[in-house]
Amino acid sequence: MTPPNPDDYEVGYDIPAALGMDEGDIQTPCLILDLDALERNIVKMGNYARAHGMRHRVHGKMHKSVDVAKLQQRLGGADGVCCQKVSEAEVFARGGITDILVSNQVRDPMKIDRLARMPKLGARVSVCVDDIANIAELSETAARHGTTLEILVEIDCGAERCGVSTPEEVVTIAQAALAAPGLNFAGIQAYQGAMQHLPEYAARKAKLDHAIAQVKQAVAALNAVGLTPALITGGGTGSYEFESTSGVYNELQCGSYAFMDADYGRILDENGQRIDAGQWENALFLLTQVMSHAKPDFAVCDAGLKVQSVDSGLPVIFGREDVTYLNCSDEHGVIADPKGVLKVGDKLRLVPGHCDPTCNLHDWYVGVRNGKVETLWPVSARGKAF
Amino acid sequence: MTPPNPDDYEVGYDIPAALGMDEGDIQTPCLILDLDALERNIVKMGNYARAHGMRHRVHGKMHKSVDVAKLQQRLGGADGVCCQKVSEAEVFARGGITDILVSNQVRDPMKIDRLARMPKLGARVSVCVDDIANIAELSETAARHGTTLEILVEIDCGAERCGVSTPEEVVTIAQAALAAPGLNFAGIQAYQGAMQHLPEYAARKAKLDHAIAQVKQAVAALNAVGLTPALITGGGTGSYEFESTSGVYNELQCGSYAFMDADYGRILDENGQRIDAGQWENALFLLTQVMSHAKPDFAVCDAGLKVQSVDSGLPVIFGREDVTYLNCSDEHGVIADPKGVLKVGDKLRLVPGHCDPTCNLHDWYVGVRNGKVETLWPVSARGKAF
Repeated sequence: MTPPNPDDYEVGYDIPAALGMDEGDIQTPCLILDLDALERNIVKMGNYARAHGMRHRVHGKMHKSVDVAKLQQRLGGADGVCCQKVSEAEVFARGGITDILVSNQVRDPMKIDRLARMPKLGARVSVCVDDIANIAELSETAARHGTTLEILVEIDCGAERCGVSTPEEVVTIAQAALAAPGLNFAGIQAYQGAMQHLPEYAARKAKLDHAIAQVKQAVAALNAVGLTPALITGGGTGSYEFESTSGVYNELQCGSYAFMDADYGRILDENGQRIDAGQWENALFLLTQVMSHAKPDFAVCDAGLKVQSVDSGLPVIFGREDVTYLNCSDEHGVIADPKGVLKVGDKLRLVPGHCDPTCNLHDWYVGVRNGKVETLWPVSARGKAF
Repeated sequence: MTPPNPDDYEVGYDIPAALGMDEGDIQTPCLILDLDALERNIVKMGNYARAHGMRHRVHGKMHKSVDVAKLQQRLGGADGVCCQKVSEAEVFARGGITDILVSNQVRDPMKIDRLARMPKLGARVSVCVDDIANIAELSETAARHGTTLEILVEIDCGAERCGVSTPEEVVTIAQAALAAPGLNFAGIQAYQGAMQHLPEYAARKAKLDHAIAQVKQAVAALNAVGLTPALITGGGTGSYEFESTSGVYNELQCGSYAFMDADYGRILDENGQRIDAGQWENALFLLTQVMSHAKPDFAVCDAGLKVQSVDSGLPVIFGREDVTYLNCSDEHGVIADPKGVLKVGDKLRLVPGHCDPTCNLHDWYVGVRNGKVETLWPVSARGKAF
């Protein structure tokens, strides 16, 4: 018998690139990061937050990557991470992030148990509450594990999702948290999610003015009973300028600024300029390849619904005016190519419509600089939905 | 020093259920399969195909699960699997599926290399071609690895994606495949993807009549040069009755019938009845939990864009007329609850809008029967997009 030939079984490798590889050899479809653009975005937001006296808790639910979060700490001075799920928070805690906010309600007993154990991994762990009944659940579990959870009362300031609506409810929950073993009252969560993507600056400002007024009422009500919230946290890529100059918020939670996407790119700044035209650079791309061009006027690429979320619109082909991404099915994208400039094998950079759910589909970020693969980062919390 | 306490590090478990667990204890959000409904769907389609003299190559891109594919072979007599990506096909080949069609073009050199190695795993491997230049690429690589690839010429019969348009192109590629070392000419791929979701039966039939006419022309052109295609393959959940009675197709490629989804459920059969009302049962559900109910008239659940694709519409709450899934953001679903019947902790079964890209977001299928967890199957090819 001859020894086995590696060729007989060496099938399959699901890493899209190797370090040092030319960008042209990256396997598609996959996510790539323009490291120069990413670093500039991170530094810029860090400088902005510092200049405005704001903490910046970067939103890890956008990228789900311990490596990106650590880059945000190192280059942008980020003060910890927020994310939306307990299982996601565990990934950041295990990865060495020491200040983590689950900016969401945690009600399931098994999830509360995981949350209450998490400080044992070395992290300060905060969570949002919008129901007085949740205080007892969290307190009992944290006390049992001998840990402390930081409680932020969540105000619904326009997202029309979770959160309480009145200053009285804020006070009631804050007092309950203060009195409960295993819990600290840390402050207020007030993130206006619904306005982030309104294109007009003035329309966004009007929504945030309303949110700020609500938060100020809540703070006044807390002060009236002798309570001072240490943290007033909120603010996304479409709103951070408003929270930063509100005089009441002291922490931002921006996420998408670091990567950007087509939907955020379309919103306008104070001067009516698209925010991807000067404020934030596209650092995230979905690299795709033309795999069929059987008809003269359109090409078919290998990036469809399995590698991107189209909830906020189709992707845009970066840097190209001559070809347009027209529609997609599960594994294909159809690209209008009226001049027939594309050929099979060509690679294109797509700017995803919506970065968060697109990143959650992938296992790897391929970081590129000067046409070479420089980093290969796992999407560490991909699929962590519990 | 005392030994470490398991409580100090025992944090995190990302499997949504354990065998034997009550359905009520499953961690949300996650995919569950009603095993009784799944088995009935599989048996029914298997019986239909057999009764109509059709092979049935089940579409593995829908479920991406070796376990489901094997159930389709065991209970439904499935004749192998088709899927859309080389990396996906490798998972099925490694899992023991021995007849695999990559129902797509493979053009990238590294992917062609992986494809050409795959027969070494013990599978008969077929692939679609719509460009004569692809024949040389496939042949050279298969010959180098000492393997054989089965070539299906793809006709665009209305999907407006990949595929050739004329009988002459079919003949040219078929002859090239026949002449090329390492390749066999196996037949024709003719899947009309665009009509599958048209609600009206007559509208679907008209589109398929057109496709059948195109396929017959291609077969006639092949016959005229002395070629007989062994396989004429195509047909989905919205069209299989037409291919099965066409007199020219001899293989189906249905996928969604096994799980069903909200979008397919709305299409109508010959009698104007929804196909999820008698023909196919909903076997796939996205289990979700209410995690906030701070306002009286709506509840917030834990299933948003990270655990489902909404490209074909929002999910439907199964078996409930009193509550409605209204909208979603990244991790939340807002549910209208006008009568205030829901409370925090309640679990609901959602029927996803579109099964394929929803399954691709998850790591596990939890199979339930009689209120208990009976199986826990990995979504084996999740994220395999290369």
